[in-house]
Amino acid sequence: MERKVYLYDTTLRDGTQGEGISLSVEDKIKIALRLDQFGIDFIEGGWPGSNPKDMAFFERIREVPLKHAKITAFGSTCRPHVAAAEDDNLRALIESGVKAAAIFGKSWDMHVTDALKTTLEENLRMVGDSVSFLKSQGLTTLFLAEHFFDGYKANSAYAMQVLQAAEQAGADWIVLCDTNGGSLPTEIYDIVKAVLKNLQVPLGIHPHNDSGVAVANVLAAVQAGATQVQGTINGIGERCGNVNLISVVPNLQLKLGYSCVSSEQLQQLTQLSRYVAEIANMTLPNNQPFVGNSAFAHKGGIHVSAVLRDPKTYEHIEPEEIGNKRRVLVSELAGQSNLQAKMEELGIDLSLERAEAREIIKTIKEREFQGYQYEGAEASLTLMLLEASGKLKNLFSLDSFKILMEKSASHAITSEATVKIHVNTEVVHTAADGNGPVNALDNAMRKALEVYYPCISKMHLTDYKVRVLDENGATAAKVRVLIESACDGEKWSTVGVSTNVIEASWEALADSIRYLLWKEGCEEAKNLVASEARVGILNH
Amino acid sequence: MERKVYLYDTTLRDGTQGEGISLSVEDKIKIALRLDQFGIDFIEGGWPGSNPKDMAFFERIREVPLKHAKITAFGSTCRPHVAAAEDDNLRALIESGVKAAAIFGKSWDMHVTDALKTTLEENLRMVGDSVSFLKSQGLTTLFLAEHFFDGYKANSAYAMQVLQAAEQAGADWIVLCDTNGGSLPTEIYDIVKAVLKNLQVPLGIHPHNDSGVAVANVLAAVQAGATQVQGTINGIGERCGNVNLISVVPNLQLKLGYSCVSSEQLQQLTQLSRYVAEIANMTLPNNQPFVGNSAFAHKGGIHVSAVLRDPKTYEHIEPEEIGNKRRVLVSELAGQSNLQAKMEELGIDLSLERAEAREIIKTIKEREFQGYQYEGAEASLTLMLLEASGKLKNLFSLDSFKILMEKSASHAITSEATVKIHVNTEVVHTAADGNGPVNALDNAMRKALEVYYPCISKMHLTDYKVRVLDENGATAAKVRVLIESACDGEKWSTVGVSTNVIEASWEALADSIRYLLWKEGCEEAKNLVASEARVGILNH
Repeated sequence: MERKVYLYDTTLRDGTQGEGISLSVEDKIKIALRLDQFGIDFIEGGWPGSNPKDMAFFERIREVPLKHAKITAFGSTCRPHVAAAEDDNLRALIESGVKAAAIFGKSWDMHVTDALKTTLEENLRMVGDSVSFLKSQGLTTLFLAEHFFDGYKANSAYAMQVLQAAEQAGADWIVLCDTNGGSLPTEIYDIVKAVLKNLQVPLGIHPHNDSGVAVANVLAAVQAGATQVQGTINGIGERCGNVNLISVVPNLQLKLGYSCVSSEQLQQLTQLSRYVAEIANMTLPNNQPFVGNSAFAHKGGIHVSAVLRDPKTYEHIEPEEIGNKRRVLVSELAGQSNLQAKMEELGIDLSLERAEAREIIKTIKEREFQGYQYEGAEASLTLMLLEASGKLKNLFSLDSFKILMEKSASHAITSEATVKIHVNTEVVHTAADGNGPVNALDNAMRKALEVYYPCISKMHLTDYKVRVLDENGATAAKVRVLIESACDGEKWSTVGVSTNVIEASWEALADSIRYLLWKEGCEEAKNLVASEARVGILNH
Repeated sequence: MERKVYLYDTTLRDGTQGEGISLSVEDKIKIALRLDQFGIDFIEGGWPGSNPKDMAFFERIREVPLKHAKITAFGSTCRPHVAAAEDDNLRALIESGVKAAAIFGKSWDMHVTDALKTTLEENLRMVGDSVSFLKSQGLTTLFLAEHFFDGYKANSAYAMQVLQAAEQAGADWIVLCDTNGGSLPTEIYDIVKAVLKNLQVPLGIHPHNDSGVAVANVLAAVQAGATQVQGTINGIGERCGNVNLISVVPNLQLKLGYSCVSSEQLQQLTQLSRYVAEIANMTLPNNQPFVGNSAFAHKGGIHVSAVLRDPKTYEHIEPEEIGNKRRVLVSELAGQSNLQAKMEELGIDLSLERAEAREIIKTIKEREFQGYQYEGAEASLTLMLLEASGKLKNLFSLDSFKILMEKSASHAITSEATVKIHVNTEVVHTAADGNGPVNALDNAMRKALEVYYPCISKMHLTDYKVRVLDENGATAAKVRVLIESACDGEKWSTVGVSTNVIEASWEALADSIRYLLWKEGCEEAKNLVASEARVGILNH
């Protein structure tokens, strides 16, 4: 049985209620385009009645050619004792120029009497009148029953009357919201089943993740007969977020046999998740189901050898189906078959002799014993493999650096770094300030090298982590620095280890630049740059 | 109906399979103590047969007095054609000295024939023989059926035979594992129900989160009759992690009426989650259900005013039940009673005026907004409270420090710190080398102050952690430094925040010494030390 489940994305509206999430109009347009490509059916763009930024989005999006998605505006029912046709909020929906509108209304009796401070009858009038008005204006109309599950538990008869008022007024969809996110799958299943006995209009589900079971709530609702899911990309949203569509879609499509998007579109899932995270400037957890960086990463030795023989042994789906990939973690727990698999994955073609491979594994183990951790720093691993097989050009090397920090009771701390770096036959000697010692060093290195390798200017650091390895040594202990860098949307991580946090940072920073130069295919420094230009830049 | 559900924590074993997770023996002991306090029934400490670190944990933990939890060792059944009593792996379990052991075995026919490369009959022998052997040695024995749900779907008759072999051999618990994390709640419910028709032994569930529904899978299993849950704190673990016990416990206890821990223990939930994250040096997502920093944070204007009138309007449970808090404008009364409770806990006796208390709460909030985190640094909180009420003597103050680091290609990096510190009316000016900038600064400070406050020589630093607060800024971002110090067996933690790791470290180091001096009751510097002795020491 294949049945269509419609996807309604509210990343651009409910998603932006999440703490720390803020999207410009330009960001929203970019995300809408990607959602359209992915096959989302409804894209909720904002609440035109609530702020000018949302109104600007609806103006801009009209000129953007979308292939499939229906842009939808969000709003509420009319206010008590105001006719729908006279309500500013509803008029703003019409003026936004959309073809579909979603309005929420109360379905929990307590909220009607205590929050809206009106009668249960007046609320039914508001729901019916608002839906009728939008329909009369030719809009596809979705009615969102706020707090429906809590309302149904408190007063199921009234909650049903609210839905019936929307249905009788001609709503195209009725959507049941678990606004507080407190419901559990079995309740959702039973209530959706009960509702469907008394309604003809297609039903949607809009859950929040406060109990950590929002994805399961969607599956329960769909198994009970709901045919629309409202959620956000990566589950962003107020408090614990809305349901994560990134987890919902592969579960529905690959496991339960429902149809949401095409197989080709499903292969964009991982990229979509990371793209939205990038634009919203949020860090994705590595262990995010389906699309996380670790979602198909295997560490334990038994797991690794089994997965290499037959992926089904330790993978619930094929990562390629959703555009993710298998990763074998090279670590103390694993051996030679890992190395071969790893090199293929990293795109390094080294035909190693058995003895060479053994030698490399020995080096990896020694370095891991010293505290290096390559599973979180695959760019450093790549460099090590290339170096071990003599395939890495030495494009720059350190002569020396100095860092001076000064702090007095009355002044903020200052950090200055000077570096001397060999490039070709020259020695570049320059200096830079920074927010701290590592930042100063990073600034000085870039300043020295950008002249020779302009691609460095496109790269930036996206994460910096320090981990103390041996606690008993405390500030004299060994530390591991992990640095994540990005360039043109691609990310890589490097590692450095030392008892000195600055030396460890230097290693990781240098690896980060060396990896970029290898990726970009830089074979030698640009000696063509006029000395004067160089001097000019270095002294800026 | 209240029914006990047993909690089995595998943070220290399966959790450490997670990418980037690495725990020292000391870390594991600390976490075990907290798990015990929280009321966890079984604490799986490691796999004694697999590596020396795990064996060291079992040796150490024997000397630690636990109130409630049973320390459990993990392993596998004996190998094909080897008697259980002769198997090294099983012998290592016995030698670890635990009273409970959990062994996994195959229950998916494909894994028996293709991975173990033995017969289905021999696998049944291995399961039965291994369980019998552990029971004969007096151990509480848990049998973990690996890949049970996939195995049951492929060949339910054989999967059941495996369980029956374990039951007949006397297993105390049988635990069904969703090893690949691909199962959905309805399948879990149906299969657990079916299994329970044919077994008498109590049943546990061990799910992974690859489909994003592990918490719901636990609820389904428990609703079908399982009475033990195996998971990890914060859901750490291989790939997408194990099920998150932090979400499981409040759902079972507050929503479904099962009993796991006491109400008082449940109030430690948020702290437990954050404590383990700190030790594992992992960043918790703000939107983590129940315990996240945003889990009860209200952003939308409508929500905030409604929540202030009646929390039930937009909160599914009361945050206090799990030790989290609402983040709206907290009423000053609630804030003050918290403060009073906290001061009692810290052993500070300050009879504060209403206005003073308000002022202190304001300061704490401002500093938390800047990135200070007092939950992990109660010594700094104590100092702040003492200072705010004028009860802290100023025993030393910074005039200035300088740090110089030099590194050349041919030499190891050197770090030198000079400090000028005011003590009484004098200015001490001295210098020291160190393994790194923070260590050099630490050494210089001690050298300057030990002459006046000899107790400083007894104190040493036991942990030093750096956390980047705003990941997007990378090396220019704000960092939080947490320092743990110890003296005569007592430990305390302090915090510093700055965009400069050295400045943040200075703050935490200075707090660490100030706290010691307060604890030791130092009222003033020892001016009795002869000037000459001082000079001698300062120049050593």
